[in-house]
Amino acid sequence: MGAKETVEVTGHLMDTGILSRILDDIRDYGGDYVLDQFEVGHEAHDPSSARITVEADDDESLQRLLMRLQTRGVNPMSLAEASTRPAERDGVLPDGFYATTNLDTRVHIDGAWHDVENPEMDCGLVVDSSTPGLRVRTVPMTDVRTGMRVVVGTAGIRVAVPSRDEVADSFATVGAELAGERPQAVLVRQVADGMRQTRADGKRLLWVVGPGVVNTGAVPALVALVRAGFVDVLFAGNGLATRDIEQALYGTSIGVEVSTQGGDHGHEHRVRALNTIRKAGSIAAAVDEGTVTSGIMHALVTGRKPFVLVGSVRDDAPLPDVHTDVVAGQRAMRAEIRDVGYCLMMAAQLHAVATANILPASVPLVCVDLDPATVTRIVDHGTSRGRGIVTDVGLFLEQLALELVAGYPRG
Amino acid sequence: MGAKETVEVTGHLMDTGILSRILDDIRDYGGDYVLDQFEVGHEAHDPSSARITVEADDDESLQRLLMRLQTRGVNPMSLAEASTRPAERDGVLPDGFYATTNLDTRVHIDGAWHDVENPEMDCGLVVDSSTPGLRVRTVPMTDVRTGMRVVVGTAGIRVAVPSRDEVADSFATVGAELAGERPQAVLVRQVADGMRQTRADGKRLLWVVGPGVVNTGAVPALVALVRAGFVDVLFAGNGLATRDIEQALYGTSIGVEVSTQGGDHGHEHRVRALNTIRKAGSIAAAVDEGTVTSGIMHALVTGRKPFVLVGSVRDDAPLPDVHTDVVAGQRAMRAEIRDVGYCLMMAAQLHAVATANILPASVPLVCVDLDPATVTRIVDHGTSRGRGIVTDVGLFLEQLALELVAGYPRG
Amino acid sequence: MGAKETVEVTGHLMDTGILSRILDDIRDYGGDYVLDQFEVGHEAHDPSSARITVEADDDESLQRLLMRLQTRGVNPMSLAEASTRPAERDGVLPDGFYATTNLDTRVHIDGAWHDVENPEMDCGLVVDSSTPGLRVRTVPMTDVRTGMRVVVGTAGIRVAVPSRDEVADSFATVGAELAGERPQAVLVRQVADGMRQTRADGKRLLWVVGPGVVNTGAVPALVALVRAGFVDVLFAGNGLATRDIEQALYGTSIGVEVSTQGGDHGHEHRVRALNTIRKAGSIAAAVDEGTVTSGIMHALVTGRKPFVLVGSVRDDAPLPDVHTDVVAGQRAMRAEIRDVGYCLMMAAQLHAVATANILPASVPLVCVDLDPATVTRIVDHGTSRGRGIVTDVGLFLEQLALELVAGYPRG
Amino acid sequence: MGAKETVEVTGHLMDTGILSRILDDIRDYGGDYVLDQFEVGHEAHDPSSARITVEADDDESLQRLLMRLQTRGVNPMSLAEASTRPAERDGVLPDGFYATTNLDTRVHIDGAWHDVENPEMDCGLVVDSSTPGLRVRTVPMTDVRTGMRVVVGTAGIRVAVPSRDEVADSFATVGAELAGERPQAVLVRQVADGMRQTRADGKRLLWVVGPGVVNTGAVPALVALVRAGFVDVLFAGNGLATRDIEQALYGTSIGVEVSTQGGDHGHEHRVRALNTIRKAGSIAAAVDEGTVTSGIMHALVTGRKPFVLVGSVRDDAPLPDVHTDVVAGQRAMRAEIRDVGYCLMMAAQLHAVATANILPASVPLVCVDLDPATVTRIVDHGTSRGRGIVTDVGLFLEQLALELVAGYPRG
Repeated sequence: MGAKETVEVTGHLMDTGILSRILDDIRDYGGDYVLDQFEVGHEAHDPSSARITVEADDDESLQRLLMRLQTRGVNPMSLAEASTRPAERDGVLPDGFYATTNLDTRVHIDGAWHDVENPEMDCGLVVDSSTPGLRVRTVPMTDVRTGMRVVVGTAGIRVAVPSRDEVADSFATVGAELAGERPQAVLVRQVADGMRQTRADGKRLLWVVGPGVVNTGAVPALVALVRAGFVDVLFAGNGLATRDIEQALYGTSIGVEVSTQGGDHGHEHRVRALNTIRKAGSIAAAVDEGTVTSGIMHALVTGRKPFVLVGSVRDDAPLPDVHTDVVAGQRAMRAEIRDVGYCLMMAAQLHAVATANILPASVPLVCVDLDPATVTRIVDHGTSRGRGIVTDVGLFLEQLALELVAGYPRG
Repeated sequence: MGAKETVEVTGHLMDTGILSRILDDIRDYGGDYVLDQFEVGHEAHDPSSARITVEADDDESLQRLLMRLQTRGVNPMSLAEASTRPAERDGVLPDGFYATTNLDTRVHIDGAWHDVENPEMDCGLVVDSSTPGLRVRTVPMTDVRTGMRVVVGTAGIRVAVPSRDEVADSFATVGAELAGERPQAVLVRQVADGMRQTRADGKRLLWVVGPGVVNTGAVPALVALVRAGFVDVLFAGNGLATRDIEQALYGTSIGVEVSTQGGDHGHEHRVRALNTIRKAGSIAAAVDEGTVTSGIMHALVTGRKPFVLVGSVRDDAPLPDVHTDVVAGQRAMRAEIRDVGYCLMMAAQLHAVATANILPASVPLVCVDLDPATVTRIVDHGTSRGRGIVTDVGLFLEQLALELVAGYPRG
Repeated sequence: MGAKETVEVTGHLMDTGILSRILDDIRDYGGDYVLDQFEVGHEAHDPSSARITVEADDDESLQRLLMRLQTRGVNPMSLAEASTRPAERDGVLPDGFYATTNLDTRVHIDGAWHDVENPEMDCGLVVDSSTPGLRVRTVPMTDVRTGMRVVVGTAGIRVAVPSRDEVADSFATVGAELAGERPQAVLVRQVADGMRQTRADGKRLLWVVGPGVVNTGAVPALVALVRAGFVDVLFAGNGLATRDIEQALYGTSIGVEVSTQGGDHGHEHRVRALNTIRKAGSIAAAVDEGTVTSGIMHALVTGRKPFVLVGSVRDDAPLPDVHTDVVAGQRAMRAEIRDVGYCLMMAAQLHAVATANILPASVPLVCVDLDPATVTRIVDHGTSRGRGIVTDVGLFLEQLALELVAGYPRG
Repeated sequence: MGAKETVEVTGHLMDTGILSRILDDIRDYGGDYVLDQFEVGHEAHDPSSARITVEADDDESLQRLLMRLQTRGVNPMSLAEASTRPAERDGVLPDGFYATTNLDTRVHIDGAWHDVENPEMDCGLVVDSSTPGLRVRTVPMTDVRTGMRVVVGTAGIRVAVPSRDEVADSFATVGAELAGERPQAVLVRQVADGMRQTRADGKRLLWVVGPGVVNTGAVPALVALVRAGFVDVLFAGNGLATRDIEQALYGTSIGVEVSTQGGDHGHEHRVRALNTIRKAGSIAAAVDEGTVTSGIMHALVTGRKPFVLVGSVRDDAPLPDVHTDVVAGQRAMRAEIRDVGYCLMMAAQLHAVATANILPASVPLVCVDLDPATVTRIVDHGTSRGRGIVTDVGLFLEQLALELVAGYPRG
């Protein structure tokens, strides 16, 4: 093997299983290692630290292995400066670009360490000295412009993995785990606590909501949560907004709905609901002119809460508010994640993955779905502090509203 | 085709789709038909009636097709008497035996019509004249004894399918359907209404409960329902009873449970819990001696509610109360279904199917499970009046207790 | 009730259950009916016909109910002409617009019947007299332009439901059904027969493919099918194309793949693969310059087979060939469905629904997926002639290639 | 904390993640620890070793924690002798009994180390000096008899965890993992290799088979494997045997089956098939008298391969060969696992768990099922060397027969 580098990592290396995952990575990337030094915590709560010399066949392989290890909080010992290279073409990163994680990241450049402003995974790192004071931020591939100064290789980059204690702030139990057959009442209370805490910290609550929320009868609960100030911003697709508005427009009583939901009746209602809002020009216009008088979208519009709707190829026709260009939609979502301190994903497959793609790892997220596969996909995604709850979204939101909204369901 | 028979059927033949299913059956069994007469209801609520001449290759095929059609409420026109043949061997029905449905059934024998006492599917019909007044009852294959007088063929048998209105008594919507993405709160209320009505009618409430009820934290809700008189008899396996007792014995707080449930800790606790009860001699003995002081089994024992536990090959060791012989277990279950007017199945796969096997079609049943496949299996099973609810059992029981038990969870 | 209309329907009304579904629809829409006449087929293969007077509260409700009934092949008796109204705004249909089905449809206009050129569901019907000879075609809401002449109401429209026999041409068994636990070898042979027949008929084979096809090791099978001429056009998302190209670029041997697929290694590979193709400018350019030398996309490019890739909000970055605007993507898909005679959907959730949205009901489609919920969603979708097969896509494609490609896997 | 003990563990502690799981266990059991010594392997393939002093509140807690740790291969340093206590009652183990793992276990007793003859989890350890030469064996709770000499506590017991290399013999990749979206062809070949190797080693191949194998059309493949000598013993329930015999008796062609499998037709066939075999007296008798002439059970009987059928409460009536007492059934299964070197579980939920309960951890097992939850349950079960493959059982067996049986499907 030709290329080697010494790296270090500190933390609860053994009781979080992180060290085994590091060694697995080295093997998976075809590398080898020598454990130079290993200071082990003698008692249960002491941190450990390791110094490892990592080898790979050549420098390119080594660089890629080192990028991989940074997702585990492993940083090179060397104090070298980061290297950069200009982007040669719009939408294309230079060869050897540093592929970001969504962890807190610092870059050593021009003699000083700089925090990356908006950690997001699978982006490039762009150094911006156009304003006074150098800034480093993530830029998605689609937004790269010719001439941008992009970090290449792993030199001069340090990544911090959230410690166990930080994570424990938001959840009684540790890390990412599936809830499956867990006591649900306890989980609802923990989520409610996390939401109250987020609000107390002055952070925003982001919801990602799928159309199942309407079908399971959870609209009143979610409307109550919007009104009580527990929804600061909402991401969804055309489906959620359309079903919600269809329910608002065709005010069918629950009884009738129950008996027809499976039928194609709603199908035709949906098409007419879409046409009605397209005619009004926007959801807000339809609310203002008195066409839409209830539902989730109505609550958001009247409560002046922002929402981002992004379409999919599955939509038969988009509402006027829907971003039909998915890259534009992602940009709109990015513009709304500042100050988000907690994220709830409710029966939202596509948009849940999309949101997990752009959120920093430091934002706790809760994914609720009846389908274990959906929940696993989010919770195993990247390095997020995700928690999965396999349960019924309708009953979950009902309980959450009872917990958080005084007087619900009467109020 | 050699053998034919004219049959008749009356009811809402078209709006319930029953006529198409009848014609499908005839085709599936390789038979043919002529629709002799068809009186169609002119308005939406009028019943229709049809007279159909059914043909098959030979008499044996015809008899089997006619048995099949009886599960749809189709009866032969002829007023012939039922034929019988004696069983020649213990545990074996005579050739050509009439295989029962679980529908209300009458048999024309010795010049009079007799109601079958205990409709159960896949049994033989035994005519019993040992007591004054002839009786006809279903007998499972395992309980056939040499010399029993068993009905063969379809002559002289009439079966009644429950009408739409009867079914509508217990549910707002019609027949067997999956709830999946339905408003859960409405469903909980409908189930609660059915339970109250059953109690008001002087009928018994049967529960079939799987071990998931313990894991989802629903023990307090179910205990409250037992104490409030909403559980008259409970069927379960070794797993439910053992996990419930394990929780009672090792009184771990919810917090600890959440963090360990996935581990093998409970595994070892379970083995010790089993040994403890085996030592006491029975669950009731363990309650009496003060070893078990809480939980579902404790509530049943102290409330003098009967339960039937039947083991499976998966059990590592059975509690002393568990029937390890499954045929004996089925007999014990049959002995407890008299006067059952409503059946709730909670996360109980194996025992739910076993109960559906022996219940008459006239008993409404509700099957709640997070896994759609389990729910479908029960709801599509036989000709039952089943309703499936795909949801979280823990949250469902919590809501049901809130609906039915005054003061819950405080009381 | 104020508004009524007499309608008629002919076919195997009872043995296909269609009549019960018609009566269910009337009830679901709050209407009522009188069955004026019912000519019943006396023998199993005779068609029946019914004349029904349908009532609704007002004319608008009646029109909507009649549109609904047309999805069942129920047509009004009256020989009135179709009414039209001009679109007043781009992207918005006029009030009372006729919402299309994907069934064969004829419109009576200007004194003659005209076939609708491209049946597609949830569209408007536009009458085009700009060219010599009047044409009627479906137009999706997004493509409506001010001044277009749009059909409103149900007068003058007749819809034909495919007969049972037509459907039986493509499948041994009838209609839409789930395969779940069915003999898979038989199903593979039936699909192969349908594909050969389609080719013999001079029609095109459309594939909709999800990324799971790469993971399950089915790339060689699908490449063989492309080369043997069994793939005429392919619809997919960014995921399938990216994973396929990633595999082509990072030519990791199967062994290594197996051990790493679950890891984030492929994650980083994917980002670099994306950047590489973006740098080349297009997939075809990357094939031409020798960067991509194997895989599904390579086979399509070298075989000059068209493909349509449409992105989603979940994509981290799109390949240059991907439509990021979903409405533009839908248009590109529509442009490729002419002459499609058979459609195969392989582990493709999002794009499978999108394709089912635009395909005429007359195109048989087969949906293969390991997840029963995905399969059900497609097979229950609209009025398509869909068939679901719940099985492993990798093994299914392997068997299909063995059946269709001489010499596979050696050739 | 009052009680402490020093333990040691050796192996690839970090790269297998075993050390983190050990420390998790200590926490979960409410204990504490000091890491006295930690010799770390400096290069990738060196083993590490650790000496840990474990503390718990009292001696009973400590003993239970130590038993738990033994499932990880952690053994006490002390060379004490094992303690024993006599069983005081049939079917009940003495207090403080050592609860076994299914790992290779040695007991230090009467001054020497003795191998446990038949490692099985959740049993007691019984010391038998009735024959010349002391023997130690596992005894399930149900088979405990008064006076048996049972090991209590953890002193004098050493457990060995299979090393990574041993496991690698049977599978290219390491340990227990789910296959889900993996290249299936590779997996089939690996399983075939494991089966050939087992046969070459003179060990037996155990199959556990569920009724889905019949439905998916895999009977011919499994029959070919029986005839070619790749099935030495088969465990199943009443369902598999009954469906297999039903298919043999009612020899319906595949076409007809496909169209009716979903119906209740098979339901009635099943009841008649059951009665036919009950009349014959046994499956072998029905084969001998020429009633059953094909299928899996026929192949086993004519090939003189043993099978164990154990019933469940779900069976409507058992075949005469079925153990209706589940404890007797478990004993019959135990009697057949000697010399088993490889175990295949095909779509068998209940009996798969039951078999995993009694197999030693040293037997590699492969669990194939379409439902990921079933596969996970087996693979996460105890400490087995299990491998899960989420795929279609029908296609899997077809491919396996092609791989192993020369001339299949022609031969």
